[in-house]
Amino acid sequence: MAHLNCDESYFMYLFGVTEPGCYGTVDVASGSTTLFVPRLPSEYAVWMGPLLSLDDFKQKYEVDAVYYADEIDVKLGELNPSVLLTLCGPNADSGLEAKPANFKGIEKFVVDSDILFPVIAECRVIKSPAEVEVLRYVAKVSSDAHKRVMKNIRPGWHEYQGEAEFLHHAYSVGGCRHVSYTCICGAGTNSAILHYGHAGSPNDRLIKNGEMCLFDMGANYNGYAADITCSFPVNGKFTDDQKLIYNAVLAARDAVCGAAKEGVSWVDMHLLANRVMLGEMKKGGLLQGEVDEMMSAGLNGIFQPHGLGHLIGLDVHDVGGYLSHCPERPTQPGANRLRMARTLMAGMYVTIEPGCYFIEPLLNKAFADPNLSKFLVKEEIDRFRNFGGVRIEDDVLITKTGIDNFTLVPRTVEEIEAWMAQ
Amino acid sequence: MAHLNCDESYFMYLFGVTEPGCYGTVDVASGSTTLFVPRLPSEYAVWMGPLLSLDDFKQKYEVDAVYYADEIDVKLGELNPSVLLTLCGPNADSGLEAKPANFKGIEKFVVDSDILFPVIAECRVIKSPAEVEVLRYVAKVSSDAHKRVMKNIRPGWHEYQGEAEFLHHAYSVGGCRHVSYTCICGAGTNSAILHYGHAGSPNDRLIKNGEMCLFDMGANYNGYAADITCSFPVNGKFTDDQKLIYNAVLAARDAVCGAAKEGVSWVDMHLLANRVMLGEMKKGGLLQGEVDEMMSAGLNGIFQPHGLGHLIGLDVHDVGGYLSHCPERPTQPGANRLRMARTLMAGMYVTIEPGCYFIEPLLNKAFADPNLSKFLVKEEIDRFRNFGGVRIEDDVLITKTGIDNFTLVPRTVEEIEAWMAQ
Repeated sequence: MAHLNCDESYFMYLFGVTEPGCYGTVDVASGSTTLFVPRLPSEYAVWMGPLLSLDDFKQKYEVDAVYYADEIDVKLGELNPSVLLTLCGPNADSGLEAKPANFKGIEKFVVDSDILFPVIAECRVIKSPAEVEVLRYVAKVSSDAHKRVMKNIRPGWHEYQGEAEFLHHAYSVGGCRHVSYTCICGAGTNSAILHYGHAGSPNDRLIKNGEMCLFDMGANYNGYAADITCSFPVNGKFTDDQKLIYNAVLAARDAVCGAAKEGVSWVDMHLLANRVMLGEMKKGGLLQGEVDEMMSAGLNGIFQPHGLGHLIGLDVHDVGGYLSHCPERPTQPGANRLRMARTLMAGMYVTIEPGCYFIEPLLNKAFADPNLSKFLVKEEIDRFRNFGGVRIEDDVLITKTGIDNFTLVPRTVEEIEAWMAQ
Repeated sequence: MAHLNCDESYFMYLFGVTEPGCYGTVDVASGSTTLFVPRLPSEYAVWMGPLLSLDDFKQKYEVDAVYYADEIDVKLGELNPSVLLTLCGPNADSGLEAKPANFKGIEKFVVDSDILFPVIAECRVIKSPAEVEVLRYVAKVSSDAHKRVMKNIRPGWHEYQGEAEFLHHAYSVGGCRHVSYTCICGAGTNSAILHYGHAGSPNDRLIKNGEMCLFDMGANYNGYAADITCSFPVNGKFTDDQKLIYNAVLAARDAVCGAAKEGVSWVDMHLLANRVMLGEMKKGGLLQGEVDEMMSAGLNGIFQPHGLGHLIGLDVHDVGGYLSHCPERPTQPGANRLRMARTLMAGMYVTIEPGCYFIEPLLNKAFADPNLSKFLVKEEIDRFRNFGGVRIEDDVLITKTGIDNFTLVPRTVEEIEAWMAQ
């Protein structure tokens, strides 16, 4: 779960450059790379530090050549390219268009801004070994930061103290200056607010003894994201009700972790998670009737209004979910929030994040709809109205035979209780 | 020292609203206030939490009336105003214009976008008692965070671990989610890079034993900024050279703290600080000749290329420095970087931040200029080429008789050594 995006990530993907104002080219035939950097006034050194020479840039970013950006038209002209492919395409998350590169003199070239985008976006979907190494690192740092929060938290903390603890570990120990999205640290009923923690509700409530916490936080390293959610009781000991909901979500997560692999449909995984979760809730006495009928009626979208997960990489909601050659967005409630409907491929990196929430307006809607209310055991559901929610979110690499889970945190009730008791 | 600005601070100043998409009006004759808030779709509640009612907004922000933003033209029309004053004016820091409010139906009103800006900007220059309370708080939190860094730091830390320590204290103890600007944590030669810590140099160097640290960091509380710099040896013990430079800057700071009050010119304070510092450097054997002649020649701008300080409030570089009724920007080196040239008034809140830096390109420039090089004792200066710099920055309220210093950190060599030895 996350809500942030940045189209600069394409430039980060290709060149890894952190200085502003640069251009970069890749010669498609030879693979040779060129960086064009701004020519900065010498006074800049006083405020920003010694200026990098062209050779410094070349060494720092391991490109084949570096020139000043004000000579880009001349230097590109010398290569006499048949066509310049510039990057331009929609972000499926924000709907915004990445703007293609532009510079003085570009009108002298044949420019195509259609070809490149889907090709590069598809490249980004399958993670390289180097990317996998960084993603594994940032997931480990984020896992450890979550573990530190769980170990230190106690009733009487404000929610933001959990955020502060996470940020401190991620930065001080992991070297992660930024997080990948605004931290979601909801306790009690706030744990059922899917994007809690925003400026209007900045994780500022006191956490009371007996409440569940849903902490969704992920560090960022060199642009690469983690996106991990841990749900746990603030006092370290699950009540029976908390166990029931937590284990329903855990069963959904375990089912997906056992079934996901190359060749499997992501939409099927979403539906599997929902089906398992509703089955557990039925066993727990909250629901009645046939799970298949609940699914057909859309009850899954009441308790988990969001998708099972999303591609993740340089963008938290990474690119490539709905490219033109991919299956279109499903229409069923819940599944219609999925950020991709593709068949999984080895090398895809995704979040698996089933959740179960007691959200007032959705419960009211379900009770008002006879097609849904017939599945609800009212007196049981009513007992959970102030429960909040549970989400379990892992970041996993898809392989030919299964998954490689980069998230290393206590997950079962027993593991969590043991860890928090230390 | 800081580099960030946001024109939303005018809206924060008048209404304190954290939710996006709002408009606000103040009836100039009566002082009555109205907030216009977006009408959000009910599904929003699932993602962002329970929607605030109009009455919730009224209570939260203590305004006289609240309506939906889509009825702003109707509700304003009922008041039949002779003119709507909208806010539009330049930011002296960024040069950007604040965009005036606009809405469907505004063409039915007489609108003036000239009158309001200088009036509100001038209001913001003099802090109210309520603002002073918040500013005192955020300066205290930031001071304590700096003290924690100084107490825990040791050789072998990376610079960013100082940043992480500051952020953690400010958030976890002080409730400050944000800082007011990108943290500057320079050690060794990096301490002479005035805006070090930016994305291209993100405080990522190892701090070696014997180095000076220059840490410039300020938390933000409810929009209000602190902007504090502490300079200290990483191992807690000043060398004689470090003492010499530090005490030269401290003498400049003490001179200004003793002289600043209502009625005094800020430009005079800048020149006083420079003069005292150069005098101390002369005493220390780095400079030779008459201090007045050094000042006339512009040597002060070599060792302190930035201004003495700036207004601070909701913006780190707060508004009101160069309004049309104020003295214009000076032209002398160093003083030309001042962000205001006004006569001080009680209620102004400013940083006092003298500094002394050994910056290669500026030293080379000075040595190449006979009008400057004659003051430099070359063998002494050369010894300091890799020293870096020292800055001491306090946030102070100007009063009729002097200053009220909100920054509470160890400042003398003895105080710093005692604090870091604990």
